[in-house]
Amino acid sequence: MEKINLAKKLALFHELWSPKIVAEVNDTHIKLSKLQGEFDWHRHELEDELFLVLHGRLQIQFQDHDVWLEEGEMLVVPRGVAHRPVAPEEVHVLLVEPRGTVSTGNLTGDDRSTAGEWI
Amino acid sequence: MEKINLAKKLALFHELWSPKIVAEVNDTHIKLSKLQGEFDWHRHELEDELFLVLHGRLQIQFQDHDVWLEEGEMLVVPRGVAHRPVAPEEVHVLLVEPRGTVSTGNLTGDDRSTAGEWI
Repeated sequence: MEKINLAKKLALFHELWSPKIVAEVNDTHIKLSKLQGEFDWHRHELEDELFLVLHGRLQIQFQDHDVWLEEGEMLVVPRGVAHRPVAPEEVHVLLVEPRGTVSTGNLTGDDRSTAGEWI
Repeated sequence: MEKINLAKKLALFHELWSPKIVAEVNDTHIKLSKLQGEFDWHRHELEDELFLVLHGRLQIQFQDHDVWLEEGEMLVVPRGVAHRPVAPEEVHVLLVEPRGTVSTGNLTGDDRSTAGEWI
């Protein structure tokens, strides 16, 4: 039972769009990710996904509107809803999603598909 | 699908030891709570519980050791493990736990027992 320091964990990696698992709580993984640029449009058929912005700002695009998240703001993207994260500048986010959730959802086999690795 | 601003949510309440639900993601509730003083020793038989400190510092006491959490640090308390949160000064925390988790765990009927209310 070790405490987790978010800043120290964020200092351990630099890859973009490569979520890292930092905690498991029940069937849920807490991940950290660094994002910049445009991700792929995708949806998660079975999983709601929570984004909390730790540093920077993140746009989440939906088919009919966009949401900007600033530091200290979060959004739950419900299962089945197509979305695309976009970050003009690097942004650091904390994700809350079920264990095994793949980053690209229905886009299996995408170069950036990953369920994350532990750090 | 509304974004959630943590600072704005924290400004909505002042009660201590009264977790407020701000998001649901799958079967998980995200709660905010303000703590000061000593809570009751308790354990959650079926639920792991994650504490993330947003402002201030929190001590979580266990039977054989204590953990201090500073801002930006988090800890998962596994199910079945007796613990007691203690905060000499007011601390604001974000909790990640299954929907319906009662704050006092096995101490049912305690004055401070609550599964939280939505804000």
